[in-house]
Amino acid sequence: MMSSVRIRVVLVEPLYEINIGYVARAMKNFALEELYIVNPRTNIGITAMKFASHAQDVLEKAVIVKSFEEAIKGVDYVVGTTGKHGREYNIRRSAITPEQLCEALKDFSGYVALVFGREDIGLTNEELEKCDVIVTIPANPKYPILNLSHAAIIIFYELYKCFHPVKSFLPEASHEEKERLIEYFNELVDVIGLPEHRRYTAKMAFRRVIGRAFATSRELYALYGVFRRAVSLIREYENLKSKRGR
Amino acid sequence: MMSSVRIRVVLVEPLYEINIGYVARAMKNFALEELYIVNPRTNIGITAMKFASHAQDVLEKAVIVKSFEEAIKGVDYVVGTTGKHGREYNIRRSAITPEQLCEALKDFSGYVALVFGREDIGLTNEELEKCDVIVTIPANPKYPILNLSHAAIIIFYELYKCFHPVKSFLPEASHEEKERLIEYFNELVDVIGLPEHRRYTAKMAFRRVIGRAFATSRELYALYGVFRRAVSLIREYENLKSKRGR
Repeated sequence: MMSSVRIRVVLVEPLYEINIGYVARAMKNFALEELYIVNPRTNIGITAMKFASHAQDVLEKAVIVKSFEEAIKGVDYVVGTTGKHGREYNIRRSAITPEQLCEALKDFSGYVALVFGREDIGLTNEELEKCDVIVTIPANPKYPILNLSHAAIIIFYELYKCFHPVKSFLPEASHEEKERLIEYFNELVDVIGLPEHRRYTAKMAFRRVIGRAFATSRELYALYGVFRRAVSLIREYENLKSKRGR
Repeated sequence: MMSSVRIRVVLVEPLYEINIGYVARAMKNFALEELYIVNPRTNIGITAMKFASHAQDVLEKAVIVKSFEEAIKGVDYVVGTTGKHGREYNIRRSAITPEQLCEALKDFSGYVALVFGREDIGLTNEELEKCDVIVTIPANPKYPILNLSHAAIIIFYELYKCFHPVKSFLPEASHEEKERLIEYFNELVDVIGLPEHRRYTAKMAFRRVIGRAFATSRELYALYGVFRRAVSLIREYENLKSKRGR
């Protein structure tokens, strides 16, 4: 999917080297490479390089341009970002969420610019008017203004998830594998001689815990042996006691 | 929902004031307040305050403790974070995604600690063993290591979304409202005298564009007038022409 969408990140008149460096790092963390910077209001030197960390290549390839128009030239879909999203009556700032942006881009193929505004005043109304869509990150209404690189990395993260969906790092064990563990546990409940009414509760509790646990096969196999060995030791003991009892 | 989950953020032996300040800011952006810092390896002074921006109160209330154990004392569910998630055979680092953490916490009620490791070496294996669950942010395998405050804000953002779901900032217009716009547009197509075979395509194109546009009522109402006025002007003109033609 990613192959049909090309993404350019645009910083408009950034003020601080730290942020420029951090945005480069955040880009590389989420597999973005193309950075345009409109009229930086700072030198971009060793501080930016330091904060870019292992993404200095992104910074070195960054293109410095003189205007917003130059930065979005040739792009098919211009995404602006703002911390101040509009009420319904301010159409210019009608914003979608990062998740909605993902929805919109999922079936899109073309060249997209993600535009981030100045640390102090964001994007101007004139710049917002030139964007095809405005994205705002849902946040605490008491303090919704995120640092530039923080806002950027959240958008990058959402788009990365969108194009590289990871449901889980580890394959969840199959239903059968989980049933097997539950069976072993139930056997243990039965051999330890719990009163009948407590057996059901214990078995159900274990089933529910395992059901919520996102357990992997590897983890279940590590547990099988514990219950089986416990059951077999208890049985040996019972045998021994019954032999002695005779 | 949020009311039944209390969240504590724990930074373990952070190195840089900038990160401490930025984490405080990120916390406030997503409505978190309780910060514990284990053995900071830096003074926490004006630099941290500066980067905390409007979240200096979070920093001022932060609790400095001497050990990991102290930081998680009294907590019900300890969430560790790591950039190096384990393969299936490293059970200690078996990680879930931030989205899975949200799933896990949605129906949880209790006290949760979100633990972030050192900038240089993360959390130690011993610390990870003490966590109930490990979270890793899915990222570019070529450079998956995020800056501390970047990792933190992504987790905070996911949890915020989880407890304060925002489907959309702006209510999408109703089906009827969209149909009304389509009707006005179709009328326009009909009055301008397009050849029959192009009318269908134009009408269908407009329907599809509107269908994908997340349009709000306010936006639709702003458009109704345009089409209606265009239609009525064209009709006036046609009337005038037909009168003159007589």
